[in-house]
Amino acid sequence: MKTNPDNPVLYPQERKHAGDYFSASEVRLANRNAGIHLEMLEHDITPIGMHYLLSHFDIPSVPAKEMWRLDIGGLVAQPQSLGLSDLESYPALDQAVTLECAGNGRALLRPRWPNMPWCLEAVGTARWGGTSLGQILAQAAPDERATTVVFSGADTGVDAGHLHRYERALSIEDAMQEEVMLAWRINEQPLPPQHGFPLRLVVPGWYGMASVKWLQKITLTDQPFNGHQQANTYMYRQSEDDPGLPVSRIRVRSLMIPPGLPDYLTRQRVLEAGETHLMGRAWSGAGVDISRVDIAIQALDSPTGEALHADLEWLPAEMSDAANDRFSWRGWHHTWHASPGRYRLYCRATDSAGDTQPLDARWDRAGLGNNAVQRIDVWVEEQLPRLDEQ
Amino acid sequence: MKTNPDNPVLYPQERKHAGDYFSASEVRLANRNAGIHLEMLEHDITPIGMHYLLSHFDIPSVPAKEMWRLDIGGLVAQPQSLGLSDLESYPALDQAVTLECAGNGRALLRPRWPNMPWCLEAVGTARWGGTSLGQILAQAAPDERATTVVFSGADTGVDAGHLHRYERALSIEDAMQEEVMLAWRINEQPLPPQHGFPLRLVVPGWYGMASVKWLQKITLTDQPFNGHQQANTYMYRQSEDDPGLPVSRIRVRSLMIPPGLPDYLTRQRVLEAGETHLMGRAWSGAGVDISRVDIAIQALDSPTGEALHADLEWLPAEMSDAANDRFSWRGWHHTWHASPGRYRLYCRATDSAGDTQPLDARWDRAGLGNNAVQRIDVWVEEQLPRLDEQ
Repeated sequence: MKTNPDNPVLYPQERKHAGDYFSASEVRLANRNAGIHLEMLEHDITPIGMHYLLSHFDIPSVPAKEMWRLDIGGLVAQPQSLGLSDLESYPALDQAVTLECAGNGRALLRPRWPNMPWCLEAVGTARWGGTSLGQILAQAAPDERATTVVFSGADTGVDAGHLHRYERALSIEDAMQEEVMLAWRINEQPLPPQHGFPLRLVVPGWYGMASVKWLQKITLTDQPFNGHQQANTYMYRQSEDDPGLPVSRIRVRSLMIPPGLPDYLTRQRVLEAGETHLMGRAWSGAGVDISRVDIAIQALDSPTGEALHADLEWLPAEMSDAANDRFSWRGWHHTWHASPGRYRLYCRATDSAGDTQPLDARWDRAGLGNNAVQRIDVWVEEQLPRLDEQ
Repeated sequence: MKTNPDNPVLYPQERKHAGDYFSASEVRLANRNAGIHLEMLEHDITPIGMHYLLSHFDIPSVPAKEMWRLDIGGLVAQPQSLGLSDLESYPALDQAVTLECAGNGRALLRPRWPNMPWCLEAVGTARWGGTSLGQILAQAAPDERATTVVFSGADTGVDAGHLHRYERALSIEDAMQEEVMLAWRINEQPLPPQHGFPLRLVVPGWYGMASVKWLQKITLTDQPFNGHQQANTYMYRQSEDDPGLPVSRIRVRSLMIPPGLPDYLTRQRVLEAGETHLMGRAWSGAGVDISRVDIAIQALDSPTGEALHADLEWLPAEMSDAANDRFSWRGWHHTWHASPGRYRLYCRATDSAGDTQPLDARWDRAGLGNNAVQRIDVWVEEQLPRLDEQ
C-alpha cells in the first residue's frame, strides 16, 4: 500500500495544549457538535435538537430499513443477523436517561486540550425506546469464555492517523445490566439520522462514548479490546506517558439555568433586584440518588470582579420529587433575594454514594471528566431599562 | 433609573475585528448555535436537530398553549387576539423552505467580526405548516395608511447595550406575499421550543433574521421601523460610518457534501482514488430557479498546498429535478474520476436571474451575506489503510 507521507490526515502533527484563544479546528467542531441551551434544563425531557450530540465522523448513510441488519457474532453458539422488525418483537424497554459527553467542561480547563471545546452544554435527557441488550445477547448463546462485547458503529474516519470505525466495548457483566439497551426510538419518534438511525446502543450511567450510534455489529470475544476509541482516546491521563484509566461512569454534576437576561455576544447576564428563582438539574452516573444540591452566592467587587469574601456559604437547594427513572437527572430550585451588585453563583451536587463536585477542576490531559462546580456571573441592577416599545 | 456604570452588559466595550484565533465569546456562541452537518445535504428535508438555528437570546418560556395569544394591533380596524385554535381554523399552508442565516460564512472572512462564527453550516430546509400571514392580516382590516408590519418575538436580551425584544419589520407589500406564513408545525410536528414554539413567522426567500420566532405581537404602523435588529444589526456596511443597506433576500449559493472520510479534529478529508460521487444543494432567495451549478477541481502541490494551475476549469454539474417548492433548494451531482494527489474542489451556483456566486467574499464589516464559492480540500490516496478489524 502506498500513501502520501505529506498527507496530514494519515500522518498528523502532534497535538499540543492551547491557551486562551481557540483555533479554527476547535470552532469547526463547536459548529458541528451541538449542546443543550441551559435554559432548556426546565424540561424533564430534552427536546430533539437540544440534546447534546458528539459525532466523531460524518453521519453515515445507512441501508434502507428493509435491508439493514444487526449482526451478532464471535464467541456465540447462535450467530444472529437481525432486522429491525426482529428487534421490535422483543419486550419493549422505555426509560429516561441522562447522557453527558466525557468532554463536557473541557473548554474551561487551562491549558486546554485541542478537541471539541464544550463549556457545559454537553448533556441531555431523552426518553429512549427499544429493548434490553441482555435479552438479545442471550438469544445468541454466548460462549462461557466470552468476557468482552464489542459494539461497532457504521461511522468511519481518521483520528490521530488511525483510520477506523467507531467501536467501543463493555465487559460482558456490564453489557448484561438490565438498563443497557438497543434503542430505535427517542422521545416517541424513530431516531433521527444524527442520533444513530436506525439503531444505537444506550448505556445508562456511562458517559456518552459508550452509547455507540449507527450500531451494525456486536462481537463477543475473550480478548481485551484495544480499539482506538477504547485504548487511546477515552482515558483519564495526567500526562502523555501516563498509561491512564478508562473513562466509564458519569461523575456527579449539577447545572443551573443562568438567571436573568443574556448579552447576545458575551452571554453575560443581567437581572433586576428582587426575588429570583434559581433552578437546575443534577445527576450522577452511579445509578444512585442525588442526595443534595447546595447553592452559594458570592458578592464580587464591581470594578474588578474579585470576590469580596473568600469563603463560600453553602445553602441547600430544594429538591424536586425523585425522578421516576434511575438514570435520569433530578430537578432542584432555590429562591434568591437579589440586591443590586455583582455576584458569582455556584451549585454543587452530592450523590447518595457520597461523591460531590470539586470546586476546582481535577487535571486531566485531554480535558475529560471535568465535573467542577459551575459558576455563573450576574449583574443585578436596581431596575433595568424599560423594553423598547416601538 | 439607576444602573451600574461598570456593568459591561448595559455599557459594552467597543467590538473590534479579530484575526486568526477565536475568542471564548465566539466559541460560546458556536456551542449554542447549531448548524447542519453538510453530509445531511443528502436529505431533501433537513431532520429536526440538523436545521441550523440562531437564537439571539435565551429560548423563552411561553404560556401554556391554552393561555397563549397572538395580538394584532396598531393601524387596523379590527384588532385581533388569536389563540392557536383560531389560527388553525384558517386554510392550511404547507411548504418546503430553505432558510439560511445572513451570517453564514462569517468565520471565513478576514478580518472577522466578533459574532457567531459560522463556517458554512447555517442553512436547512424544513417543511413548514401553518397559514398565510396575508389572510390573518386581512381579517384585522389594515388601515390604508399602514406601510409597515412589525413582528415581536418573546425573546428578550441585551445587544450592544440595548435591552430589547427581538423584533423585525416587513413592508406591508412584502408581508402580504402569499408565501409569507405563520407556522406552527415543522416537518409534520409541533414546533420544538428552539424553533419558536408555539408560533413563528416564516419569510421564504429572506435570510433567517426575518423569520421571527416565538411570535407574540404584530403591529401595523405608518412609520419606518427602527428597532435594534432592523436598523443596527442586519445591515450591509463597508465601514463603521457607512449608513448601510438592509439585509433582505438570500444570495445565491451552492454547497457540496465533503467527499471521502474526515479527520476527527481538523475535518480534513481523505479518499481513495477512483469514481467519486460529488453532490450538494443550491438555492437562491430570489424565488427563481437555480439554472446551473458548476464544479471546478484544482490540483494542488502536495507539500505546499499551492495551486499547480491558477486557472479554474468549470464543468457543469447535473441538476436534479426542480424542487416542488419555489423556495426550496435544488440538488445537483457530478462524478469525479479522482487520481492520487491533493485537490481543491469548488462549486458555484447561478440562478435564473443571472446572479452567481463570487469566487472571493465581498467585504462586509459584520460578515453578512458572504456567498463566496465553497472550497473543500481533499487528499486522494491510491489506496487507504484497511479498516481495523478487531
